[in-house]
Amino acid sequence: MLKNDLLKIINYTIDSVLPENSVRKNIKKMNILNEKIFLLSIGKAAWRMAKAAKEELKENIKSGIVITKYNHNLGDIDSLEIYEAGHPIPDENSIKATKRVLEIINSLEDDFIILFLISGGGSSLFELPEDNISLDEIQYITHQLLRSGANINEINAIRKRLSKVKGGKFANLVYPKKIKALVLSDVLGDKLESIASGPAYKDINSSKKIEDIIKKYNINVNNSIKKVLFKEPPKNIVNAQHIIIGSVKIACEKAFEKAKDLGYNALLLTTSLSCEAKEAGKFFANIALEELKYNNPIKKPCAIIAGGETIVNVKGNGLGGRNQELSYSFALEVEGLKNIAFASVGTDGTDGPTDAAGGIVDGFTSIKLKTKGLDPYIFLENNDTYNALEEAGDLLKIGPTGTNVNDIIILLVGGN
Amino acid sequence: MLKNDLLKIINYTIDSVLPENSVRKNIKKMNILNEKIFLLSIGKAAWRMAKAAKEELKENIKSGIVITKYNHNLGDIDSLEIYEAGHPIPDENSIKATKRVLEIINSLEDDFIILFLISGGGSSLFELPEDNISLDEIQYITHQLLRSGANINEINAIRKRLSKVKGGKFANLVYPKKIKALVLSDVLGDKLESIASGPAYKDINSSKKIEDIIKKYNINVNNSIKKVLFKEPPKNIVNAQHIIIGSVKIACEKAFEKAKDLGYNALLLTTSLSCEAKEAGKFFANIALEELKYNNPIKKPCAIIAGGETIVNVKGNGLGGRNQELSYSFALEVEGLKNIAFASVGTDGTDGPTDAAGGIVDGFTSIKLKTKGLDPYIFLENNDTYNALEEAGDLLKIGPTGTNVNDIIILLVGGN
Repeated sequence: MLKNDLLKIINYTIDSVLPENSVRKNIKKMNILNEKIFLLSIGKAAWRMAKAAKEELKENIKSGIVITKYNHNLGDIDSLEIYEAGHPIPDENSIKATKRVLEIINSLEDDFIILFLISGGGSSLFELPEDNISLDEIQYITHQLLRSGANINEINAIRKRLSKVKGGKFANLVYPKKIKALVLSDVLGDKLESIASGPAYKDINSSKKIEDIIKKYNINVNNSIKKVLFKEPPKNIVNAQHIIIGSVKIACEKAFEKAKDLGYNALLLTTSLSCEAKEAGKFFANIALEELKYNNPIKKPCAIIAGGETIVNVKGNGLGGRNQELSYSFALEVEGLKNIAFASVGTDGTDGPTDAAGGIVDGFTSIKLKTKGLDPYIFLENNDTYNALEEAGDLLKIGPTGTNVNDIIILLVGGN
Repeated sequence: MLKNDLLKIINYTIDSVLPENSVRKNIKKMNILNEKIFLLSIGKAAWRMAKAAKEELKENIKSGIVITKYNHNLGDIDSLEIYEAGHPIPDENSIKATKRVLEIINSLEDDFIILFLISGGGSSLFELPEDNISLDEIQYITHQLLRSGANINEINAIRKRLSKVKGGKFANLVYPKKIKALVLSDVLGDKLESIASGPAYKDINSSKKIEDIIKKYNINVNNSIKKVLFKEPPKNIVNAQHIIIGSVKIACEKAFEKAKDLGYNALLLTTSLSCEAKEAGKFFANIALEELKYNNPIKKPCAIIAGGETIVNVKGNGLGGRNQELSYSFALEVEGLKNIAFASVGTDGTDGPTDAAGGIVDGFTSIKLKTKGLDPYIFLENNDTYNALEEAGDLLKIGPTGTNVNDIIILLVGGN
C-alpha cells in the first residue's frame, strides 16, 4: 500500500521530467506558433527533445540541427540534420556539426528565432575552438587541467575562453537573431553558466580569475593561447532567454505535488543532497523513527523528499550504485518497523553499473535476507547492495528514461 | 545577530535540562510534600540531582543514599549518605553502597516512598550480583561479551540476569514500597529498560533470547551461572512509576520553543541522529542552501533542529570531537554565504578530549582560516577540527554542565 503510493509518486515524477514531456509542455506555453524557427538541439537527450519539438511545432521549424552522443541518433526527423559527436571529450565531429550550425544560421534572415534545446553533455558535443587555436591544443590544456586538481568550475572557466561558442559567445555570433533556450539541467543548483558551458549565457569569470587558475595549477600555455585566454568574453547577452524545463528541483516539486494529491503531508528537505549515500540513508532513517514515535518533523501520514547526487566511497568489490546504497543503508536502520516505505532513484533510470535505477525498501527488506540465512550487513560493507536488494526483491527497475536530472529520494510514513 | 540568537537558544536549552533545574521543576509537580521519603540517587549526575531534591523536599526526605562516580561527591548533603564507586566497570564500592541501600530500605515502614533519581552511569554504580555469583564472575562474563562482538542490548540482557537489582528486580525487592523515579536519559530513544539497566523497569528479554546470545557468541558459562541466567525476571512491576525529566527529546523541544519565541519558524528533524558527524554537517549544509535559495523545507527565518549522537571515524591525528567535526564540516560547505548560523553542541559541555562543547559556525568560518593562510580542508582530513575552530574563533565553550542528554544541532537561517 505504502510502497504502491511510493511507486505512483516516482512514476509521476519521472514522467514529468522526461525530455519529450517537458519540451512539449513548455513549447505550448511559449507562443511561438507564428515564428520562423531554426531548431538547435544539443546533448544526450537532444534527439528526443528535438523529436518532441518538431511534432509540436511542425512546419514552423524550417530547418535545424541535432548534435548528440554516438548511438543516440534514433532515426530521421523531418527537415533536421542529425549529427553524432564525441562525449565527454569533443572530437572532429563536434566541430564539424557546430560549424554547420553557424553556417545555416548565417544564411537565415534576421527574423528567424533559434529554439535552442540544451541537455547534459552539450559542452563536448557543441564546440568550436577560438581563432588560432586547434582542437589538439584545447585537448592538451584540458588534460593538464584534469590532472592538476582544478575543480570543475575552474576547468570550465578556461574552456569557455578557448571556445568560440561557450560562455555566451554563441549568442553573440548569431546576434541579432533571438535565442529561446529550453534547458534540461543535470547540474545541482541549475546554474545556467555551467549547463553545456553556457553557449548563450554570460561568462561570469574575470581575466584575473583566469590568470589565477593558470598560475595556481601551473598550466603550460604558449603565447598565442595566452592571447586568446585573456580576450574578454561578451559582457551582456541581450538576445537570449533561458527556461529550465527539467531539473532535480522540478522533479522534487512534482514528487511533492503527487504526494499531496495522495493525501500525504509533504516536506522538501533539499534539492542539493551531496553527502555520502549510506550516511544519507541513516539520516533519513533517523527522521523515519522520529515520525513513527513523535510525529516530527511533519504530521503523519507524510512524504519527506530530497533531490541531489550522493557519493559512494567504494571499499568492497560488490555491485551497486549510490541510490541502491542509500536505500539499502536506510533499510538496515529500520528493520522490523511498519508503516515506512523509502526509495532512492536515479531519474535516468540507471544507477551505477547496474540495470536498476535504485531501491525501494521498507522494514522487511533486511528480514527477508535473514530469512534466507543471509547476513544483511555484509552486503553493505562490500558495497554489494544490488545483490542485497535483488535477494530481497526490492530493486527498482524502470529502464532508461533518456533524462538525467539526478536522484530523487522519498520517505513515506503512514498512520497518524 | 544570528549567532547571538543561536547562543540564546543553546543556553536556554542547556539550562532546561540541567540536573538541578529538571529535578526541581518535576518535584514541584509531584505532590509528595506529605510523604515520608527515602531518596536514592544514582549516576554521574547523582550528587547534583540529590542536592536539588533535598533543597526542594527538605525534611520530607528522612534518609537517603547517593552513589556517584569517583570525584563527583561535591560535599555533604544533610541526612544523606554519599558513596563513590566504579564507572564504567562496577567495583566493590558499587556493591557496598547498593547493599547499604537495601539495608536501609528494609528497615523502613512500608508507607515510605522511594524517590529514585537516575542518571547515566547508574548501571555500574548500582550493582549487586545475584545469589551464588561473584563480582569476579560478572566481570569475567562481561569481558567475554565485550570482546565477542555482541551489541549493547545483548550485553545488557545478560547483565540484567546476573544482577539482583537490574531489570526490575530492585523494584521487586522493595515491594510493597512505592518507587517514583525521575530519569535523566542519556540513551537515544529514552528506553527505560536501558537507562541504568532499568532497576525498577521490566526486563523484556526472554530466556530463549539469553540462550541465543550465549550460543551466538560462544560465551563460556559454568552450570551455577547458567542456573542464574535462566531464572525468569519479574513479569510485572506494580510499584514503580518513571518520569523522564531530561532527555535529548526534551532538549530539542526546548530549543524549538526558544527559537519560536525569538521569531523563527522551527522544524525538529529528528532526536536520534546517529550517522557520521561530517556527513550530517554536509546534509545540514544542503538544507541551508535550500533555505537560502528556495525557502524550503520551512519558511525563513527558520531554525532547523536535531538531537542525537553522531560518530567520527578517526583517520587523522588531530584534536576534536563529534560536535566540532559536524559543525566544521558544515562550515566548509557554506563558505561565503550570509544569513546562516549553525552549531552542534554536547549538552554535557564537553566534546571529545577537548575543553570545548562544540562549534558555532557560519559562512565566514573557513574564510577566516584562509585569511590566515591556512587550508581549511586539511584540518577536516586530519580530524583536527578543534584547532580549525580555535583559529576561526568559532569554538563553543560552556564548561561542564553535569548533565548529559547527548548533542543538539541547530541551523538558523535569517532573512525571508
